[in-house]
Amino acid sequence: MNAAPGGFRVGLLGHGTVGSAFAHLLPAQAGRIELITGLRPAISGVLTRSSGSFEEILEVSDLIVELIGGIEPAREYVLSAMRAGRHVVTANKQLLSQHGEELWQTARANGVQLRFEGAVAGVVPVIRVVQESLSGATIDRVHGIVNGTTNFILTEMARTGMTFAEALAEAQRLGYAEADPSDDVGGRDAAAKMAILARLAFDTPVHLDQVRYEGIEQIQPDDLEYARELGLGLKLIGTAERIDGGLSVRVHPAFLYPGHPLASVNGPFNAVTVESPEITEITMSGPGAGGPQTASAVLGDVVSAMIPPASTPPTMRVLEIVHDVVSAFYLHLEVADRPGVLAGVAQVLAEHEVSVKSVVQKGLGEQARLVMVVHPVLESRFAGAMAQIARLDVLRAPPRAIRVLEEEFG
Amino acid sequence: MNAAPGGFRVGLLGHGTVGSAFAHLLPAQAGRIELITGLRPAISGVLTRSSGSFEEILEVSDLIVELIGGIEPAREYVLSAMRAGRHVVTANKQLLSQHGEELWQTARANGVQLRFEGAVAGVVPVIRVVQESLSGATIDRVHGIVNGTTNFILTEMARTGMTFAEALAEAQRLGYAEADPSDDVGGRDAAAKMAILARLAFDTPVHLDQVRYEGIEQIQPDDLEYARELGLGLKLIGTAERIDGGLSVRVHPAFLYPGHPLASVNGPFNAVTVESPEITEITMSGPGAGGPQTASAVLGDVVSAMIPPASTPPTMRVLEIVHDVVSAFYLHLEVADRPGVLAGVAQVLAEHEVSVKSVVQKGLGEQARLVMVVHPVLESRFAGAMAQIARLDVLRAPPRAIRVLEEEFG
Repeated sequence: MNAAPGGFRVGLLGHGTVGSAFAHLLPAQAGRIELITGLRPAISGVLTRSSGSFEEILEVSDLIVELIGGIEPAREYVLSAMRAGRHVVTANKQLLSQHGEELWQTARANGVQLRFEGAVAGVVPVIRVVQESLSGATIDRVHGIVNGTTNFILTEMARTGMTFAEALAEAQRLGYAEADPSDDVGGRDAAAKMAILARLAFDTPVHLDQVRYEGIEQIQPDDLEYARELGLGLKLIGTAERIDGGLSVRVHPAFLYPGHPLASVNGPFNAVTVESPEITEITMSGPGAGGPQTASAVLGDVVSAMIPPASTPPTMRVLEIVHDVVSAFYLHLEVADRPGVLAGVAQVLAEHEVSVKSVVQKGLGEQARLVMVVHPVLESRFAGAMAQIARLDVLRAPPRAIRVLEEEFG
Repeated sequence: MNAAPGGFRVGLLGHGTVGSAFAHLLPAQAGRIELITGLRPAISGVLTRSSGSFEEILEVSDLIVELIGGIEPAREYVLSAMRAGRHVVTANKQLLSQHGEELWQTARANGVQLRFEGAVAGVVPVIRVVQESLSGATIDRVHGIVNGTTNFILTEMARTGMTFAEALAEAQRLGYAEADPSDDVGGRDAAAKMAILARLAFDTPVHLDQVRYEGIEQIQPDDLEYARELGLGLKLIGTAERIDGGLSVRVHPAFLYPGHPLASVNGPFNAVTVESPEITEITMSGPGAGGPQTASAVLGDVVSAMIPPASTPPTMRVLEIVHDVVSAFYLHLEVADRPGVLAGVAQVLAEHEVSVKSVVQKGLGEQARLVMVVHPVLESRFAGAMAQIARLDVLRAPPRAIRVLEEEFG
């Protein structure tokens, strides 16, 4: 199972949702990673519940990826791997929030990297940003929505008026909540992640037991209803902040005013806002969990451990630069206010196979304004229709067009 | 001007807005950086328009920070520094978008790092995330609001109904637009940033001249007014995306539906969304410009160049964990619907120095619901008030309280 010479051997511990996604992703990206790093990564061994030997895998690996979860035997494996001089990448928030100091000390003592982007907020790159991008800033506060299960449940309760129990059942049906959701809905999962973030942001040891947390089981539908009347949205918020020379780390439900950067984070998404006098604030958001997403964060860590930080790699191909693309458009016309104008414009659009999505028409005495949004169309085709419309004798001003990004989100 | 032995010598080229902020920030953070890296950084020389010699500064520097801007002499200095084996950190988007391949090739050939987080979206860490976090993902599309001047202008036009010219004047008055704003409002500044992002996201050479761009000078107040009726918001959007095996890189105004992750990015903020099948999408946002913000991004790059990528540093202090913090609260009471109830509750709150911000009261036959938001107060004090309210004989159910994040944003 050894990688070829010139390869980079990755030993994988754990083959659950994230582990199997990682085992699928690494070979798919191996060619690109070889171009970036000069080394082709390959899985050198997989430890599952029923097969494989940790010692044998360690022997044939340059780096160990730990995706078993929980404390033991994950802790023992990670410590052994680092003592044997191997880099380690893990997504294990329980382990880091309870035994982080021991692990980080072992990494430093053995001159190896311990990376753990996947442990907090899935693919949202908060660990790297706090540790590296903001290494020259003084962080005052971190606010995070770091549990996708609870954010999905609160979003559904707000959207539909469901009870907590109904929204939890819906989350379980869609795979956003586990069969035993107590760590998620009780706030303990978010507390572990905030302990890790607080450690990095404030250079001070923070153990999970020092994080005060509440969950969302007590939230009632009418809390959300009244909150809407007051202009507020409800999230499970993790906070780590300096207070008078001390540090508060806590997780609890909290209402947000609509302008807050976390207020528009809905569904199973995660987001983290970092505040610092040097930078004002940065917000990062994205999917907070899911096998492929977390596996992607783990693979980013593996690549970083393979090489010193990026010198930009050589160009790997020369893509053709495309100029004619598909866009939806907003179209603004000032026209004579008389019968048949809309029909005339619509006919030109139809001739160019431009399809109308919505129209607003307003009369203004002698003239009218016609504002339309058209469905996505090749820009050259739309330009042809615009040129012909500009020549219509009912036009009172040059037509104006602005693109519309068509995708619906959230 | 040499740094002490054991120090890390940073030569600074340029002393404008960002350069002087950097010269202020580096000494302020030198102690913390020494704890992280083991080396104390110091400015070894500063080249300004009127003083300093590039060759003399290069001689006494381990790393060169280029904040002159423009093409020459910045290009010659950056190339010379790398050929002399020095790492380089720059925030120069013009240079990278027009001479990037030459610079990156020189960095690789000389085994030095060329870092440039500050060149795109200020402190928003898009460069690091695309190059490092997402090195194991296939990127399909990047959408960005990468020019704060235009985003401020469009936000003001939408908010107040101002014309473009009026909003531009306001931006100039507040320092969000330069005396000659043509690169910003015409889209060329955003185009340079999108060329750099596209190069990194798609591993293909992209020159500024290959980016098609439009600006916002033609936007009329009634475009924004009608868009609001159609439920759309307007942004200057940079796009880089794969299309049929080719690549489109473009900048133009575009309307966004409200659920789009960039729709809520207002004022001088920047934001970038990266889409990939492995990760769905990540969005990052923050201040897009400003001396201290860009200087912070530059300093993060300097620290990264000083050390191999982070092993988590030892804890540097042990902060006290604080448990009693200040929060605003939402308070939900089910009470008997009779005179004097609100007064009774209000009196308890007043006794505990809890101040009411807003109240909603609704009668429901025999009983009523009283929903309040109170101003920030020490949690222990609020808990005391809650305990006393819970004992009031008008209460029909246990009181419920949820925290409110009080800050107003945007």
